[in-house]
Amino acid sequence: MNEKEIIELVHSTKSIIYNKEMAHAVTVKGAADYVTKVDVAVQEYLRKELAARTPDVILLAEEQENNNLDLAKSYWILDPIDGTTNLIHDYRMSAVSLGLYENGQMTFGVVYNPFTEETFHASLGKGAFLNGEPIHVSHREALDTCIIAFGSAPYEKERASMLFPIFQRVFMETADFRRSASAALDLCYLAAGRIDGFFELNLKPWDYAAGSLIIEEAGGKITDWNGTRLPFLANSDILTCTPEIYERIKKLLKH
Amino acid sequence: MNEKEIIELVHSTKSIIYNKEMAHAVTVKGAADYVTKVDVAVQEYLRKELAARTPDVILLAEEQENNNLDLAKSYWILDPIDGTTNLIHDYRMSAVSLGLYENGQMTFGVVYNPFTEETFHASLGKGAFLNGEPIHVSHREALDTCIIAFGSAPYEKERASMLFPIFQRVFMETADFRRSASAALDLCYLAAGRIDGFFELNLKPWDYAAGSLIIEEAGGKITDWNGTRLPFLANSDILTCTPEIYERIKKLLKH
Repeated sequence: MNEKEIIELVHSTKSIIYNKEMAHAVTVKGAADYVTKVDVAVQEYLRKELAARTPDVILLAEEQENNNLDLAKSYWILDPIDGTTNLIHDYRMSAVSLGLYENGQMTFGVVYNPFTEETFHASLGKGAFLNGEPIHVSHREALDTCIIAFGSAPYEKERASMLFPIFQRVFMETADFRRSASAALDLCYLAAGRIDGFFELNLKPWDYAAGSLIIEEAGGKITDWNGTRLPFLANSDILTCTPEIYERIKKLLKH
Repeated sequence: MNEKEIIELVHSTKSIIYNKEMAHAVTVKGAADYVTKVDVAVQEYLRKELAARTPDVILLAEEQENNNLDLAKSYWILDPIDGTTNLIHDYRMSAVSLGLYENGQMTFGVVYNPFTEETFHASLGKGAFLNGEPIHVSHREALDTCIIAFGSAPYEKERASMLFPIFQRVFMETADFRRSASAALDLCYLAAGRIDGFFELNLKPWDYAAGSLIIEEAGGKITDWNGTRLPFLANSDILTCTPEIYERIKKLLKH
Protein backbone atom coordinates (compact mmCIF):
# COMPACT_ATOMS: atom_id res chain seq x y z
CA MET A 1 0.00 0.00 0.00
CA ASN A 2 1.29 3.45 -0.80
CA GLU A 3 0.56 6.61 1.22
CA LYS A 4 -2.35 7.61 -0.95
CA GLU A 5 -4.04 4.22 -0.63
CA ILE A 6 -3.71 4.15 3.15
CA ILE A 7 -5.15 7.66 3.46
CA GLU A 8 -8.04 6.80 1.13
CA LEU A 9 -8.75 3.70 3.18
CA VAL A 10 -8.85 5.76 6.38
CA HIS A 11 -11.14 8.33 4.71
CA SER A 12 -13.56 5.56 3.78
CA THR A 13 -14.46 5.13 7.48
CA LYS A 14 -16.37 8.43 7.44
CA SER A 15 -19.81 6.95 6.83
CA ILE A 16 -19.40 4.60 9.80
CA ILE A 17 -18.31 7.44 12.07
CA TYR A 18 -21.24 9.64 11.02
CA ASN A 19 -23.73 6.90 12.01
CA LYS A 20 -25.28 8.56 15.10
CA GLU A 21 -27.22 5.48 16.14
CA MET A 22 -23.99 3.50 16.40
CA ALA A 23 -22.18 6.42 18.09
CA HIS A 24 -24.82 6.43 20.82
CA ALA A 25 -24.67 2.63 21.33
CA VAL A 26 -22.27 2.82 24.26
CA THR A 27 -20.64 0.17 26.46
CA VAL A 28 -18.76 1.16 29.61
CA LYS A 29 -15.20 -0.25 29.72
CA GLY A 30 -14.20 1.41 32.97
CA ALA A 31 -14.51 4.71 34.88
CA ALA A 32 -15.22 7.41 32.25
CA ASP A 33 -13.99 4.91 29.63
CA TYR A 34 -16.39 4.03 26.85
CA VAL A 35 -16.58 2.11 23.61
CA THR A 36 -19.31 2.59 21.00
CA LYS A 37 -20.42 0.47 18.07
CA VAL A 38 -18.57 2.97 15.87
CA ASP A 39 -15.20 2.14 17.53
CA VAL A 40 -15.79 -1.57 17.00
CA ALA A 41 -17.08 -1.24 13.42
CA VAL A 42 -14.25 1.06 12.28
CA GLN A 43 -11.67 -1.31 13.77
CA GLU A 44 -13.28 -4.39 12.22
CA TYR A 45 -13.50 -2.70 8.82
CA LEU A 46 -9.87 -1.53 8.86
CA ARG A 47 -8.66 -4.86 10.27
CA LYS A 48 -10.12 -6.72 7.31
CA GLU A 49 -8.97 -4.23 4.71
CA LEU A 50 -5.42 -4.01 6.09
CA ALA A 51 -5.12 -7.80 6.48
CA ALA A 52 -6.14 -8.30 2.86
CA ARG A 53 -3.64 -5.77 1.55
CA THR A 54 -0.69 -6.18 3.95
CA PRO A 55 -0.97 -9.72 5.35
CA ASP A 56 2.52 -9.61 6.93
CA VAL A 57 1.77 -6.61 9.16
CA ILE A 58 0.22 -7.42 12.55
CA LEU A 59 -2.58 -5.23 13.90
CA LEU A 60 -2.12 -3.61 17.30
CA ALA A 61 -5.42 -1.90 18.12
CA GLU A 62 -7.47 -0.45 20.95
CA GLU A 63 -10.54 -2.66 20.91
CA GLN A 64 -8.80 -6.05 21.12
CA GLU A 65 -6.28 -7.99 23.21
CA ASN A 66 -2.68 -7.30 22.14
CA ASN A 67 -0.33 -10.03 23.32
CA ASN A 68 3.15 -11.38 22.52
CA LEU A 69 4.37 -8.17 20.94
CA ASP A 70 7.72 -8.49 19.19
CA LEU A 71 9.71 -5.30 18.64
CA ALA A 72 11.31 -6.77 15.52
CA LYS A 73 8.01 -7.30 13.68
CA SER A 74 5.88 -4.84 11.72
CA TYR A 75 2.64 -3.47 13.17
CA TRP A 76 -0.26 -1.33 12.14
CA ILE A 77 -1.04 0.64 15.31
CA LEU A 78 -4.70 1.68 15.21
CA ASP A 79 -7.07 3.71 17.30
CA PRO A 80 -10.36 3.32 15.42
CA ILE A 81 -11.79 6.30 17.35
CA ASP A 82 -9.51 8.51 19.40
CA GLY A 83 -11.85 10.75 21.39
CA THR A 84 -14.70 8.29 22.00
CA THR A 85 -16.29 10.40 24.73
CA ASN A 86 -16.32 13.32 22.28
CA LEU A 87 -18.01 11.11 19.70
CA ILE A 88 -20.74 10.17 22.19
CA HIS A 89 -21.28 13.86 23.00
CA ASP A 90 -21.08 14.98 19.34
CA TYR A 91 -18.16 17.23 20.35
CA ARG A 92 -16.58 16.80 16.90
CA MET A 93 -13.02 16.27 18.16
CA SER A 94 -12.57 12.58 17.32
CA ALA A 95 -10.23 10.94 14.86
CA VAL A 96 -9.04 7.70 13.31
CA SER A 97 -5.34 7.26 14.12
CA LEU A 98 -3.30 4.74 12.14
CA GLY A 99 0.47 4.32 12.28
CA LEU A 100 2.93 1.87 10.74
CA TYR A 101 5.74 0.56 12.95
CA GLU A 102 8.62 -1.15 11.11
CA ASN A 103 12.24 -1.91 12.00
CA GLY A 104 11.92 -0.43 15.47
CA GLN A 105 10.47 2.92 14.43
CA MET A 106 7.37 4.64 13.10
CA THR A 107 7.53 4.99 9.32
CA PHE A 108 4.04 6.30 8.56
CA GLY A 109 1.19 7.96 10.45
CA VAL A 110 -2.20 9.36 9.54
CA VAL A 111 -4.80 11.02 11.78
CA TYR A 112 -8.18 11.85 10.25
CA ASN A 113 -10.94 13.95 11.83
CA PRO A 114 -14.05 13.37 9.69
CA PHE A 115 -15.96 16.21 11.41
CA THR A 116 -13.53 18.90 10.29
CA GLU A 117 -12.34 16.98 7.20
CA GLU A 118 -8.76 17.42 8.35
CA THR A 119 -6.20 14.73 7.54
CA PHE A 120 -2.75 14.96 9.11
CA HIS A 121 -0.08 12.58 7.82
CA ALA A 122 3.65 11.97 7.72
CA SER A 123 6.11 9.47 6.28
CA LEU A 124 9.54 9.04 7.84
CA GLY A 125 11.93 11.62 6.40
CA LYS A 126 9.35 13.19 4.12
CA GLY A 127 7.75 15.89 6.29
CA ALA A 128 4.29 16.34 7.80
CA PHE A 129 1.14 17.46 6.05
CA LEU A 130 -2.39 18.70 6.71
CA ASN A 131 -4.72 17.97 3.81
CA GLY A 132 -1.65 17.68 1.61
CA GLU A 133 -0.06 21.00 2.63
CA PRO A 134 3.22 21.01 4.61
CA ILE A 135 2.93 21.85 8.32
CA HIS A 136 5.46 22.61 11.01
CA VAL A 137 5.46 23.35 14.72
CA SER A 138 5.14 26.98 15.86
CA HIS A 139 8.71 27.45 17.08
CA ARG A 140 7.35 29.94 19.62
CA GLU A 141 9.95 30.82 22.25
CA ALA A 142 8.25 33.21 24.68
CA LEU A 143 6.59 30.88 27.18
CA ASP A 144 3.97 33.47 28.13
CA THR A 145 2.61 33.40 24.55
CA CYS A 146 2.44 29.58 24.41
CA ILE A 147 -0.72 27.48 24.58
CA ILE A 148 -0.34 24.08 26.20
CA ALA A 149 -2.88 21.27 25.87
CA PHE A 150 -2.96 18.45 28.37
CA GLY A 151 -4.71 15.25 29.24
CA SER A 152 -6.54 14.78 32.52
CA ALA A 153 -6.13 11.00 32.93
CA PRO A 154 -9.91 10.67 33.37
CA TYR A 155 -9.64 6.88 33.79
CA GLU A 156 -7.24 7.26 36.74
CA LYS A 157 -8.79 9.98 38.88
CA GLU A 158 -6.60 9.04 41.84
CA ARG A 159 -3.80 10.84 39.97
CA ALA A 160 -5.65 14.18 39.92
CA SER A 161 -4.10 15.37 43.19
CA MET A 162 -0.69 15.04 41.55
CA LEU A 163 -1.79 16.38 38.15
CA PHE A 164 -3.78 19.52 38.98
CA PRO A 165 -0.86 21.30 40.70
CA ILE A 166 1.16 20.58 37.53
CA PHE A 167 -1.64 22.02 35.38
CA GLN A 168 -1.64 25.14 37.55
CA ARG A 169 2.16 25.49 37.43
CA VAL A 170 2.20 25.20 33.63
CA PHE A 171 -0.73 27.63 33.35
CA MET A 172 1.06 30.25 35.45
CA GLU A 173 4.09 30.22 33.11
CA THR A 174 2.24 30.11 29.78
CA ALA A 175 -0.56 32.00 28.02
CA ASP A 176 -3.26 29.42 28.68
CA PHE A 177 -4.23 25.77 28.33
CA ARG A 178 -6.58 23.75 26.17
CA ARG A 179 -8.24 20.37 26.66
CA SER A 180 -9.80 18.67 23.65
CA ALA A 181 -9.78 15.08 24.99
CA SER A 182 -8.40 13.66 21.76
CA ALA A 183 -4.69 13.01 22.30
CA ALA A 184 -4.17 12.11 18.63
CA LEU A 185 -5.62 15.46 17.55
CA ASP A 186 -3.68 17.37 20.22
CA LEU A 187 -0.48 15.88 18.78
CA CYS A 188 -1.48 16.91 15.26
CA TYR A 189 -2.50 20.40 16.41
CA LEU A 190 0.99 20.75 17.89
CA ALA A 191 2.47 19.64 14.56
CA ALA A 192 0.40 22.29 12.80
CA GLY A 193 1.49 25.06 15.19
CA ARG A 194 -1.98 25.51 16.72
CA ILE A 195 -0.68 24.71 20.20
CA ASP A 196 2.88 24.83 21.48
CA GLY A 197 3.03 21.91 23.90
CA PHE A 198 1.07 18.88 25.11
CA PHE A 199 1.48 16.40 27.94
CA GLU A 200 -0.51 13.46 29.28
CA LEU A 201 0.07 10.47 31.53
CA ASN A 202 -0.06 6.86 30.41
CA LEU A 203 -1.09 7.06 26.77
CA LYS A 204 -1.57 3.84 24.83
CA PRO A 205 0.42 3.11 21.64
CA TRP A 206 -2.65 3.78 19.47
CA ASP A 207 -3.09 7.21 21.09
CA TYR A 208 0.39 8.46 20.23
CA ALA A 209 2.03 6.26 17.55
CA ALA A 210 0.82 8.04 14.40
CA GLY A 211 0.89 11.48 16.01
CA SER A 212 4.45 11.08 17.26
CA LEU A 213 5.81 10.71 13.73
CA ILE A 214 3.68 13.61 12.47
CA ILE A 215 5.18 15.79 15.24
CA GLU A 216 8.77 14.76 14.56
CA GLU A 217 8.34 15.33 10.84
CA ALA A 218 6.86 18.77 11.64
CA GLY A 219 9.95 19.69 13.68
CA GLY A 220 8.63 18.99 17.18
CA LYS A 221 10.17 17.04 20.03
CA ILE A 222 8.33 14.12 21.63
CA THR A 223 9.49 11.90 24.50
CA ASP A 224 8.19 10.56 27.78
CA TRP A 225 8.20 12.91 30.81
CA ASN A 226 11.86 12.04 31.53
CA GLY A 227 13.10 12.76 28.02
CA THR A 228 13.34 9.09 27.02
CA ARG A 229 12.46 7.87 23.52
CA LEU A 230 8.93 6.47 23.18
CA PRO A 231 8.45 2.67 23.23
CA PHE A 232 5.70 2.63 20.53
CA LEU A 233 4.46 -0.87 21.47
CA ALA A 234 3.84 -0.02 25.14
CA ASN A 235 2.06 2.64 27.19
CA SER A 236 3.97 5.83 27.91
CA ASP A 237 3.62 9.22 29.55
CA ILE A 238 3.97 11.77 26.76
CA LEU A 239 5.58 15.21 26.62
CA THR A 240 5.79 17.04 23.33
CA CYS A 241 6.63 20.64 22.52
CA THR A 242 8.07 22.92 19.98
CA PRO A 243 11.84 22.42 20.63
CA GLU A 244 12.31 25.97 21.90
CA ILE A 245 10.21 25.40 25.04
CA TYR A 246 10.63 21.65 25.58
CA GLU A 247 13.16 21.81 28.43
CA ARG A 248 11.24 24.50 30.29
CA ILE A 249 7.97 22.54 30.17
CA LYS A 250 9.77 19.31 31.14
CA LYS A 251 11.04 21.03 34.28
CA LEU A 252 7.50 22.14 35.21
CA LEU A 253 6.27 18.52 35.12
CA LYS A 254 8.62 17.35 37.87
CA HIS A 255 6.59 16.36 40.90
CA MET B 1 -33.78 43.76 10.37
CA ASN B 2 -35.30 40.33 10.60
CA GLU B 3 -33.48 37.21 11.90
CA LYS B 4 -32.38 36.12 8.46
CA GLU B 5 -30.88 39.52 7.61
CA ILE B 6 -28.92 39.68 10.88
CA ILE B 7 -27.55 36.17 10.36
CA GLU B 8 -26.58 36.94 6.76
CA LEU B 9 -24.83 40.09 7.91
CA VAL B 10 -22.85 38.11 10.49
CA HIS B 11 -21.95 35.48 7.86
CA SER B 12 -20.57 38.20 5.62
CA THR B 13 -17.66 38.73 8.06
CA LYS B 14 -16.12 35.42 6.99
CA SER B 15 -13.71 36.84 4.42
CA ILE B 16 -12.32 39.28 7.01
CA ILE B 17 -11.83 36.50 9.56
CA TYR B 18 -10.06 34.26 7.03
CA ASN B 19 -7.49 36.99 6.31
CA LYS B 20 -4.41 35.41 7.92
CA GLU B 21 -2.25 38.50 7.54
CA MET B 22 -4.73 40.50 9.63
CA ALA B 23 -5.18 37.65 12.11
CA HIS B 24 -1.44 37.68 12.76
CA ALA B 25 -1.29 41.48 13.17
CA VAL B 26 -1.50 41.39 16.96
CA THR B 27 -1.55 44.10 19.62
CA VAL B 28 -1.20 43.22 23.30
CA LYS B 29 -4.03 44.67 25.44
CA GLY B 30 -2.92 43.08 28.71
CA ALA B 31 -1.49 39.85 30.14
CA ALA B 32 -2.45 37.07 27.67
CA ASP B 33 -5.01 39.52 26.22
CA TYR B 34 -4.71 40.30 22.55
CA VAL B 35 -6.47 42.14 19.76
CA THR B 36 -5.81 41.56 16.06
CA LYS B 37 -6.66 43.61 12.99
CA VAL B 38 -9.42 41.06 12.37
CA ASP B 39 -11.18 41.96 15.65
CA VAL B 40 -11.05 45.65 14.78
CA ALA B 41 -12.11 45.21 11.15
CA VAL B 42 -15.05 42.92 11.95
CA GLN B 43 -16.28 45.34 14.61
CA GLU B 44 -15.91 48.37 12.34
CA TYR B 45 -17.72 46.60 9.50
CA LEU B 46 -20.63 45.45 11.71
CA ARG B 47 -20.79 48.83 13.47
CA LYS B 48 -21.37 50.61 10.17
CA GLU B 49 -23.82 48.06 8.81
CA LEU B 50 -25.87 47.90 12.01
CA ALA B 51 -25.91 51.69 12.40
CA ALA B 52 -27.23 52.10 8.87
CA ARG B 53 -30.00 49.55 9.36
CA THR B 54 -30.98 50.06 13.01
CA PRO B 55 -29.96 53.63 13.90
CA ASP B 56 -31.84 53.59 17.22
CA VAL B 57 -29.91 50.64 18.67
CA ILE B 58 -26.68 51.52 20.48
CA LEU B 59 -23.58 49.35 19.97
CA LEU B 60 -21.93 47.80 23.03
CA ALA B 61 -18.77 46.10 21.79
CA GLU B 62 -15.45 44.68 22.89
CA GLU B 63 -13.03 46.87 20.99
CA GLN B 64 -14.32 50.29 22.10
CA GLU B 65 -15.14 52.29 25.23
CA ASN B 66 -18.66 51.61 26.49
CA ASN B 67 -19.90 54.40 28.76
CA ASN B 68 -23.18 55.77 30.13
CA LEU B 69 -25.08 52.51 29.66
CA ASP B 70 -28.83 52.83 30.23
CA LEU B 71 -30.72 49.64 31.02
CA ALA B 72 -33.87 51.05 29.42
CA LYS B 73 -32.29 51.49 25.98
CA SER B 74 -31.70 48.96 23.20
CA TYR B 75 -28.22 47.60 22.50
CA TRP B 76 -26.46 45.42 20.02
CA ILE B 77 -23.94 43.51 22.17
CA LEU B 78 -21.04 42.46 19.97
CA ASP B 79 -17.87 40.45 20.31
CA PRO B 80 -16.32 40.77 16.85
CA ILE B 81 -14.01 37.81 17.64
CA ASP B 82 -14.61 35.68 20.69
CA GLY B 83 -11.54 33.47 20.97
CA THR B 84 -8.90 35.93 19.73
CA THR B 85 -5.98 33.86 21.04
CA ASN B 86 -7.38 30.88 19.13
CA LEU B 87 -7.55 33.02 15.99
CA ILE B 88 -3.89 34.01 16.37
CA HIS B 89 -2.95 30.32 16.79
CA ASP B 90 -5.26 29.11 13.99
CA TYR B 91 -7.00 26.91 16.58
CA ARG B 92 -10.31 27.28 14.72
CA MET B 93 -12.47 27.87 17.81
CA SER B 94 -13.35 31.53 17.30
CA ALA B 95 -16.70 33.14 16.66
CA VAL B 96 -18.59 36.34 16.02
CA SER B 97 -21.11 36.83 18.85
CA LEU B 98 -23.96 39.33 18.39
CA GLY B 99 -26.92 39.77 20.71
CA LEU B 100 -29.83 42.21 20.85
CA TYR B 101 -30.81 43.61 24.26
CA GLU B 102 -34.24 45.28 24.43
CA ASN B 103 -36.65 46.11 27.26
CA GLY B 104 -34.34 44.72 29.90
CA GLN B 105 -33.75 41.32 28.31
CA MET B 106 -32.01 39.55 25.44
CA THR B 107 -34.37 39.11 22.50
CA PHE B 108 -31.97 37.74 19.86
CA GLY B 109 -28.56 36.11 19.76
CA VAL B 110 -26.32 34.66 17.05
CA VAL B 111 -22.89 33.03 17.38
CA TYR B 112 -21.05 32.14 14.17
CA ASN B 113 -17.87 30.04 13.87
CA PRO B 114 -16.62 30.54 10.31
CA PHE B 115 -14.06 27.73 10.64
CA THR B 116 -16.65 25.03 11.23
CA GLU B 117 -19.45 26.88 9.39
CA GLU B 118 -21.66 26.50 12.43
CA THR B 119 -24.23 29.19 13.23
CA PHE B 120 -26.10 29.05 16.53
CA HIS B 121 -29.03 31.42 17.00
CA ALA B 122 -32.11 32.04 19.11
CA SER B 123 -34.97 34.54 19.33
CA LEU B 124 -36.83 35.03 22.60
CA GLY B 125 -39.58 32.44 22.92
CA LYS B 126 -38.85 30.79 19.58
CA GLY B 127 -36.24 28.12 20.46
CA ALA B 128 -32.55 27.69 19.66
CA PHE B 129 -31.02 26.50 16.41
CA LEU B 130 -27.77 25.23 14.89
CA ASN B 131 -27.60 25.88 11.15
CA GLY B 132 -31.38 26.13 11.18
CA GLU B 133 -32.04 22.86 13.03
CA PRO B 134 -33.52 22.93 16.56
CA ILE B 135 -31.10 22.18 19.40
CA HIS B 136 -31.55 21.52 23.09
CA VAL B 137 -29.36 20.85 26.11
CA SER B 138 -28.40 17.25 26.92
CA HIS B 139 -30.58 16.85 30.05
CA ARG B 140 -27.95 14.41 31.35
CA GLU B 141 -28.50 13.63 35.03
CA ALA B 142 -25.67 11.28 36.05
CA LEU B 143 -22.87 13.65 37.03
CA ASP B 144 -20.17 11.06 36.31
CA THR B 145 -21.18 11.04 32.61
CA CYS B 146 -21.16 14.85 32.30
CA ILE B 147 -18.53 16.93 30.53
CA ILE B 148 -17.91 20.37 31.98
CA ALA B 149 -16.08 23.16 30.14
CA PHE B 150 -14.56 26.04 32.04
CA GLY B 151 -12.67 29.24 31.63
CA SER B 152 -9.25 29.78 33.19
CA ALA B 153 -9.38 33.59 33.66
CA PRO B 154 -6.06 33.89 31.78
CA TYR B 155 -6.06 37.69 32.18
CA GLU B 156 -6.27 37.41 35.99
CA LYS B 157 -3.73 34.75 36.88
CA GLU B 158 -3.76 35.77 40.53
CA ARG B 159 -7.11 33.94 40.73
CA ALA B 160 -5.62 30.59 39.68
CA SER B 161 -4.92 29.50 43.25
CA MET B 162 -8.65 29.81 43.94
CA LEU B 163 -9.75 28.37 40.58
CA PHE B 164 -7.63 25.24 40.16
CA PRO B 165 -8.96 23.53 43.31
CA ILE B 166 -12.46 24.18 41.93
CA PHE B 167 -11.46 22.66 38.58
CA GLN B 168 -10.16 19.60 40.41
CA ARG B 169 -13.30 19.28 42.55
CA VAL B 170 -15.56 19.48 39.50
CA PHE B 171 -13.35 17.02 37.60
CA MET B 172 -13.54 14.46 40.43
CA GLU B 173 -17.36 14.45 40.33
CA THR B 174 -17.82 14.46 36.54
CA ALA B 175 -16.59 12.50 33.51
CA ASP B 176 -14.04 15.08 32.39
CA PHE B 177 -13.50 18.71 31.45
CA ARG B 178 -12.89 20.66 28.28
CA ARG B 179 -11.29 24.03 27.60
CA SER B 180 -11.82 25.64 24.21
CA ALA B 181 -11.06 29.26 25.21
CA SER B 182 -14.09 30.61 23.39
CA ALA B 183 -16.77 31.30 25.99
CA ALA B 184 -19.35 32.12 23.31
CA LEU B 185 -18.80 28.72 21.67
CA ASP B 186 -18.78 26.90 25.01
CA LEU B 187 -22.23 28.38 25.70
CA CYS B 188 -23.48 27.25 22.29
CA TYR B 189 -21.95 23.78 22.71
CA LEU B 190 -23.89 23.50 25.96
CA ALA B 191 -27.07 24.55 24.13
CA ALA B 192 -26.41 21.83 21.54
CA GLY B 193 -25.85 19.13 24.19
CA ARG B 194 -22.14 18.69 23.39
CA ILE B 195 -21.15 19.58 26.95
CA ASP B 196 -23.28 19.53 30.08
CA GLY B 197 -22.00 22.51 32.04
CA PHE B 198 -19.72 25.56 31.79
CA PHE B 199 -18.40 28.11 34.24
CA GLU B 200 -16.04 31.07 34.09
CA LEU B 201 -15.22 34.12 36.17
CA ASN B 202 -15.80 37.71 35.10
CA LEU B 203 -17.10 37.40 31.56
CA LYS B 204 -17.88 40.56 29.63
CA PRO B 205 -21.37 41.23 28.22
CA TRP B 206 -20.17 40.47 24.68
CA ASP B 207 -18.84 37.09 25.81
CA TYR B 208 -22.15 35.85 27.19
CA ALA B 209 -25.07 37.99 25.94
CA ALA B 210 -25.92 36.12 22.72
CA GLY B 211 -25.01 32.71 24.14
CA SER B 212 -27.15 33.18 27.26
CA LEU B 213 -30.33 33.49 25.20
CA ILE B 214 -29.33 30.53 23.01
CA ILE B 215 -28.90 28.44 26.17
CA GLU B 216 -32.20 29.49 27.71
CA GLU B 217 -34.05 28.81 24.47
CA ALA B 218 -32.35 25.39 24.34
CA GLY B 219 -33.62 24.54 27.83
CA GLY B 220 -30.49 25.31 29.85
CA LYS B 221 -30.10 27.35 33.00
CA ILE B 222 -27.67 30.29 33.14
CA THR B 223 -26.95 32.60 36.09
CA ASP B 224 -23.98 34.01 37.94
CA TRP B 225 -22.19 31.73 40.45
CA ASN B 226 -24.72 32.64 43.16
CA GLY B 227 -27.77 31.85 41.08
CA THR B 228 -28.59 35.51 40.31
CA ARG B 229 -29.96 36.63 36.93
CA LEU B 230 -27.31 37.98 34.55
CA PRO B 231 -26.92 41.76 34.22
CA PHE B 232 -26.32 41.71 30.40
CA LEU B 233 -24.78 45.22 30.34
CA ALA B 234 -22.12 44.47 32.97
CA ASN B 235 -19.44 41.85 33.65
CA SER B 236 -20.53 38.70 35.44
CA ASP B 237 -19.26 35.35 36.64
CA ILE B 238 -21.16 32.73 34.64
CA LEU B 239 -22.51 29.31 35.58
CA THR B 240 -24.62 27.40 33.09
CA CYS B 241 -25.74 23.79 33.02
CA THR B 242 -28.38 21.45 31.87
CA PRO B 243 -31.03 22.00 34.60
CA GLU B 244 -30.65 18.48 36.00
CA ILE B 245 -27.11 19.13 37.29
CA TYR B 246 -27.15 22.90 37.88
CA GLU B 247 -27.52 22.83 41.69
CA ARG B 248 -24.83 20.16 42.11
CA ILE B 249 -22.30 22.10 40.03
CA LYS B 250 -23.20 25.37 41.80
CA LYS B 251 -22.38 23.73 45.13
CA LEU B 252 -18.96 22.61 43.82
CA LEU B 253 -18.05 26.22 42.93
CA LYS B 254 -18.34 27.49 46.52
CA HIS B 255 -14.93 28.56 47.75
